[in-house]
Amino acid sequence: MGKEITSRSENYSEWYQDLVIKADLAENSAVRGCMVIKPYGYAIWEKMQRALDQMFKDTGHSNAYFPLFIPKSFFAKEAAHIEGFAKECAVVTHYRLRNTADGKGIEVDPDAKLEEELIVRPTSETIIWNTYRNWIQSYRDLPILVNQWANVVRWEMRTRLFLRTAEFLWQEGHTAHASAEEAMEETTKMLGVYADFAENWMAMPVIKGVKTANERFAGAVETFCIEALMQDGKALQAGTSHFLGQNFARAFDVKFTNKAGVQDYVWATSWGVSTRLMGALVMAHSDDDGLVLPPKLAPIQVVIVPIYKNEEQLAQLNEYSQKIKKSLEARGISVKYDNRDTHKPGWKFAEYELKGVPVRIAIGPRDMENHSVEVARRDTKEKAVYQVVDLDVKIEHLLNQIQENIYNKALSFRETATWKADTMAEFTDILDNKGGFVHAHWDGTTETELKIKELTKATIRCIPLDNKPESGSCILTGKPSTQRVVFARAY
Amino acid sequence: MGKEITSRSENYSEWYQDLVIKADLAENSAVRGCMVIKPYGYAIWEKMQRALDQMFKDTGHSNAYFPLFIPKSFFAKEAAHIEGFAKECAVVTHYRLRNTADGKGIEVDPDAKLEEELIVRPTSETIIWNTYRNWIQSYRDLPILVNQWANVVRWEMRTRLFLRTAEFLWQEGHTAHASAEEAMEETTKMLGVYADFAENWMAMPVIKGVKTANERFAGAVETFCIEALMQDGKALQAGTSHFLGQNFARAFDVKFTNKAGVQDYVWATSWGVSTRLMGALVMAHSDDDGLVLPPKLAPIQVVIVPIYKNEEQLAQLNEYSQKIKKSLEARGISVKYDNRDTHKPGWKFAEYELKGVPVRIAIGPRDMENHSVEVARRDTKEKAVYQVVDLDVKIEHLLNQIQENIYNKALSFRETATWKADTMAEFTDILDNKGGFVHAHWDGTTETELKIKELTKATIRCIPLDNKPESGSCILTGKPSTQRVVFARAY
Repeated sequence: MGKEITSRSENYSEWYQDLVIKADLAENSAVRGCMVIKPYGYAIWEKMQRALDQMFKDTGHSNAYFPLFIPKSFFAKEAAHIEGFAKECAVVTHYRLRNTADGKGIEVDPDAKLEEELIVRPTSETIIWNTYRNWIQSYRDLPILVNQWANVVRWEMRTRLFLRTAEFLWQEGHTAHASAEEAMEETTKMLGVYADFAENWMAMPVIKGVKTANERFAGAVETFCIEALMQDGKALQAGTSHFLGQNFARAFDVKFTNKAGVQDYVWATSWGVSTRLMGALVMAHSDDDGLVLPPKLAPIQVVIVPIYKNEEQLAQLNEYSQKIKKSLEARGISVKYDNRDTHKPGWKFAEYELKGVPVRIAIGPRDMENHSVEVARRDTKEKAVYQVVDLDVKIEHLLNQIQENIYNKALSFRETATWKADTMAEFTDILDNKGGFVHAHWDGTTETELKIKELTKATIRCIPLDNKPESGSCILTGKPSTQRVVFARAY
Repeated sequence: MGKEITSRSENYSEWYQDLVIKADLAENSAVRGCMVIKPYGYAIWEKMQRALDQMFKDTGHSNAYFPLFIPKSFFAKEAAHIEGFAKECAVVTHYRLRNTADGKGIEVDPDAKLEEELIVRPTSETIIWNTYRNWIQSYRDLPILVNQWANVVRWEMRTRLFLRTAEFLWQEGHTAHASAEEAMEETTKMLGVYADFAENWMAMPVIKGVKTANERFAGAVETFCIEALMQDGKALQAGTSHFLGQNFARAFDVKFTNKAGVQDYVWATSWGVSTRLMGALVMAHSDDDGLVLPPKLAPIQVVIVPIYKNEEQLAQLNEYSQKIKKSLEARGISVKYDNRDTHKPGWKFAEYELKGVPVRIAIGPRDMENHSVEVARRDTKEKAVYQVVDLDVKIEHLLNQIQENIYNKALSFRETATWKADTMAEFTDILDNKGGFVHAHWDGTTETELKIKELTKATIRCIPLDNKPESGSCILTGKPSTQRVVFARAY
């Protein structure tokens, strides 16, 4: 193969990087911090997009598109947004190039300086709420339920493919409502959509929770999130949904006349997931041999590899395999038949393991005689001989089983990596030696939260929505606490 | 309605602008030259994307994603590309903002200046061919058949919604091949895909042709295009497909070992269509009452409007209409049932005419009694009473008829607006008084082409692929010519 991957136990971070590159998901580009998403990686992202987009439409949302550029002054309009939001942005200052005097190169034309600099959007609340001002006069114009699929740029200094890149792809929902209750309902509804997608498509269990004030989105009144656990025991925030109150409406003067005829500011939400999910997908399930993809997101769900010794056998296998391929495709299963004579079966097996294809079917002359095929599943590496009768139904069933098994495996991993800590000593011991989610009491102050982060590098991932009240004392300060919150080291 | 649209005869350009805005397709944003694509407009674009994307996949292409930013030096690598490509680009020079000294605003941090400026991609040949260098070693790595859906920026000074905007959405295919023949085959195949899409989805007849050297894409060996005729007699270039030869491979040093073991530069194509097609769609078919959308691209294909005098009637109509809606939806037809009590039927009729909904079904109590409905088609404004028996089949048939009729109407318009001119006097008279495509002899020189443009504002749209040889003399210089070429004033 020549595609050696560092093992997880050796170096988890290198394993991840190796896998993303060797499985042809993405690579670094010539532009610092920006990635190239390769066809195989993009095919997975397209499947994610397609599923999410349908879920957004089923919950009443429409797509729209807003400008890539945002006037600099817009960011200064919402105080918390400007204060809290990272200032690492790509800034457009000029709009023309010209030939250099020697005619050999190009340079920025100093005469083409913009009056006001434009920021490449790091997120679009400001430009969208500036637009909504003209769309909304009365309660009859509400709600506005809009989503945008777009690229955004945040000038990160230390980047990692998918997990943290200067440019990334995402969707951002921006909704406008006539009441706080309705906006809050939207916020939690979309959090539910994200959790549903993470669990039922990505096969990745998540905790739904609310962020502490310190971890809140800049400009939000309340930030909700889904948090997943990676195999190295670190948490990954997989999606956020923000209740923005009237903050952006106030900043951009977006008012409406309510049913009582009284003017009020409009209520807002925003919510997003990004290509970061690709990183989460890789890290949640894959192993030292390559990707493990949940069938629902696998670009190729089944690969068929013929095993033959001569041209005559191959011709027979081609016919036999094409029939199987068609019967599987008729059930909506995506199938690749790989009869290339440039590579040996063993090479192909390793290649499709690397690429995370959920089911491999190998067929040799004796299988044909016996009306059978050899079926190998990627998740457990188990092999079995299947009779070809009703193979389509059996494979469909197997794909569902694999989807479920991958989820259950991730869920039990999370269960064994979820702890309670009642002292700082316990807390630190778990983080240093075991990893995972640590439920611990906290006194509710930002000061304590930051101190714990400083001491342990762990942050409060969220306060779970289904949290049960429990009296206790803060692991750092000993002050009283009414509930445990979820800590972890995180991506 | 309060949504008066300027008539086409009064002012075609204002009619277009009114229509785009009042039908909720798009609007100008706070950022000069950048548009907001509104949900209704975006829904049409999504239908275009979905259809094109499937056609690309059916012809063996995969999607991928390359960086938004391109290092300035990349543009200087391909001589014709830098020379010919517009230099009006958005230039990123800094990567950080900071708070102003007074704490009230933000400003560009002068310490965060990039070593090399980044250009927001106006097109991606350079960054993609720089990437392909690492993907290609041997003929076994070829062909690469990749497409990208992306936003691009060209700093246009005079912009018009969809037709010419600073930022626009598009797709750009970039393929790599082992031979000139294969690359040329790809170039014309994708031109064929565009023509197929324009004619069979947009219901817009197009001429397939090749551009003159003067109108060629910067860096291309040959540029092919599809040209459509708008209702004001002006041409619109609706898509281009470029045979790039080995130009970009040479500029970015992309070589491969061929089957004979010899190193050679890789052959390239690129091809694209953009949100400009939205403008073409509007201008090709719509009338003074609003949009006329071909059913295959209409977000709502059928609207049902109940006509009632009281709540009891409405309740009955709701039940009756929902049954009809479901039966239509079961055939894959998208249906909206508009029973809002905030607007009168007449208002709704005008609204859906404005929005270009192909079929309107009105149902009153008497229709219910008679087991009938009133069906109005948007394209011809004809109304007819249909019995509800097999209504789904009849409506499906009607939608196909409308699709065909819109195409035929555009085709016969083009036929009546296609002329031959043999002298400059005839040529100018047609352009000034009739408009349309003018087939005329030309001596084949760029000098003559530019002179004719200067005198008449008409350009050579293309040399049709199916052109017949014909001896004649150039309308300007009288020099011999072997074929007529297609001139027009253009968008």
